[in-house]
Amino acid sequence: MAIKYELIKVCKQSGARLGKIHTPHGVIETPIFMPVGTQATVKAMTPEELKKIEAQIILSNTYHLYLRPGHKLVEKAGGLHKFMNWDKPILTDSGGFQVFSLGDLRKISEEGVEFRSHIDGSKHFLSPEKAIEIENSLGADIIMAFDECAPYPADRQYVKNSLERTTRWLKRCIDAHKYPERQALFGIIQGGMYKDLRHQSLNEILSFDLPGYAVGGLSVGEPKDLMYEVLEYTTPLMPKDKPRYLMGVGSPDCLIEGVIRGIDMFDCVHPTRIGRNGTAMTSIGRVVIKNAKYAEDFMPLDPNCDCYTCKSYSRAYIRHLFKAGEILASRLVTYHNLHFLLNLMKEIRQAIMEDRLLDYRREFFQKYGYTL
Amino acid sequence: MAIKYELIKVCKQSGARLGKIHTPHGVIETPIFMPVGTQATVKAMTPEELKKIEAQIILSNTYHLYLRPGHKLVEKAGGLHKFMNWDKPILTDSGGFQVFSLGDLRKISEEGVEFRSHIDGSKHFLSPEKAIEIENSLGADIIMAFDECAPYPADRQYVKNSLERTTRWLKRCIDAHKYPERQALFGIIQGGMYKDLRHQSLNEILSFDLPGYAVGGLSVGEPKDLMYEVLEYTTPLMPKDKPRYLMGVGSPDCLIEGVIRGIDMFDCVHPTRIGRNGTAMTSIGRVVIKNAKYAEDFMPLDPNCDCYTCKSYSRAYIRHLFKAGEILASRLVTYHNLHFLLNLMKEIRQAIMEDRLLDYRREFFQKYGYTL
Ligand SMILES: [Zn+2]
Ligand SMILES: [Zn+2]
Repeated sequence: MAIKYELIKVCKQSGARLGKIHTPHGVIETPIFMPVGTQATVKAMTPEELKKIEAQIILSNTYHLYLRPGHKLVEKAGGLHKFMNWDKPILTDSGGFQVFSLGDLRKISEEGVEFRSHIDGSKHFLSPEKAIEIENSLGADIIMAFDECAPYPADRQYVKNSLERTTRWLKRCIDAHKYPERQALFGIIQGGMYKDLRHQSLNEILSFDLPGYAVGGLSVGEPKDLMYEVLEYTTPLMPKDKPRYLMGVGSPDCLIEGVIRGIDMFDCVHPTRIGRNGTAMTSIGRVVIKNAKYAEDFMPLDPNCDCYTCKSYSRAYIRHLFKAGEILASRLVTYHNLHFLLNLMKEIRQAIMEDRLLDYRREFFQKYGYTL
Repeated sequence: MAIKYELIKVCKQSGARLGKIHTPHGVIETPIFMPVGTQATVKAMTPEELKKIEAQIILSNTYHLYLRPGHKLVEKAGGLHKFMNWDKPILTDSGGFQVFSLGDLRKISEEGVEFRSHIDGSKHFLSPEKAIEIENSLGADIIMAFDECAPYPADRQYVKNSLERTTRWLKRCIDAHKYPERQALFGIIQGGMYKDLRHQSLNEILSFDLPGYAVGGLSVGEPKDLMYEVLEYTTPLMPKDKPRYLMGVGSPDCLIEGVIRGIDMFDCVHPTRIGRNGTAMTSIGRVVIKNAKYAEDFMPLDPNCDCYTCKSYSRAYIRHLFKAGEILASRLVTYHNLHFLLNLMKEIRQAIMEDRLLDYRREFFQKYGYTL
């Protein structure tokens, strides 16, 4: 098998898991947040900067890389790691979520999804076989199965059809996968917000005995409480010796709540996207740096942060960079936001080690301005 | 005096000068190229990256900083060095060139220039006194006098009026300058492409015995040969114990030709601007990275370069980043271009030391694809 999950400890206070994932490109300490590098680059960051803030694994997007520069080009370059100069673990999604999000530009059938490129309108077809072919070319350590993610809200029959198709597609993904010994294929559990359908999906997907599993179909617009509820009846049925990945989640509260509910891996474009727009996540809540009140504020972005941005620059300077449309603005806040989330995950791991994750949650929420 | 120029050696082959400028923020080895940080940031770069490529001094723009964020804000922040986190020397221009370039948006009188902001259309007035007030607030090591730069072409009388006004304005700049002991005020020689007017300007400007002098009114659209000719009858009359600054010049050929004609300092937005647009200056000439021929080119941007960009990434990858509109694209080519020019200046200094700058010029031009 390409990867191996090692469970180190369960938090006595919360039930959260501390673990390690051994991959062909090194070890990942879990729970972990994965910065997103959609187009073979985590926007505004270099690989060296990602290492400095202790990113352990990044995510890249099959849909985008297939369209541009093309997976065959990446393969010729020696694979995605070499192409983008990142020698640590990579996870690629299957492109499914992106093509389903294309709305009128796509047509779903049992065979796969016909869609038009968001770049030039050209026509393409993505199927389980094609997605795996692309992911095999890219060469990530962890590759996601091609699934159908139901929207929220969606009626029961729609969700049932989607989850059953996801199971049939998973079978085709497994058959198409050329390198199971060096790329770990994760199955995705669907079932929307229906408990019995989640259980049906769990039964079907877990029967394939894959190296890891994701919970899909969450963080698609439902209330947070509903997401937590679904996790509460889903993760206890997942195997203890495999990593569990909650897709598309990256706000501080959801990361903590997800870990408490047994999740090991997260990803989200949120911290980098809001960073480029000038919103920082800080230990005392969000800072929208363009606000006039920061014009003459010579404090760091986050007074409790020791990242490069916070050690070197004032809010007034960063605000100026944003007002002036400077590239350095995006760089500095992206850097801080990713550092903030990776540091949060580090503190979470420490709290699990010390059997005090619920205490940590209370302390964090209080400082950040969340209510429990 | 705020700065001191030390002449180390004159190249026996070319007459070029090797020197040092001692400033309040450290020593600059000349001849030097100064990266431009218009809005208190060298676009896409951090100060640490600038140090890594051995930038010794950067330039920032009075006009831009006056409008945004405002020189009083920068002063409150502790000055420009502290505001932007750059502890090495800085030179600020006077804003004159920018406001004269505003065309219909400005009105010149003996008192100064009334202009409208390019940002919001608001009305402002820049005079020798105001420009120096701003430059005093910014706190750069070297500050430029407020001058009138004639366009090219311009008739004799226009140029004569401009140069004489520049002299009168210089007197007012000197009178307004509050910190001559920590900020070196440079006078600017005008006179367009007229030999006798250049000589008149030299006589007038040099009479003030300032710590350094610039040759202004060149690189404003005239043919390169004409610029070289003007330099040839201007620099020999400039004092040997003061630095000489050729404003707005930054192409490799002009840097070498300028040094051969006795220039010590250069600045230009060119390398950073073309870098952000995907054009690299390399040892074998220009590389326009978006061109289709680089799509599957896995060589470095410049095979003879040892900068971070060239050691880490392929042309194919950088091309992909540009096609995908990624920030890292601008970062990588900006970094390489500045490294290229700073390394060129280093090689020029070495060639002067070895009395072989004309040989170096021949070798460089041949590789780069220039004709002598
Ligand atoms: Zn920070
Ligand atoms: Zn290079």
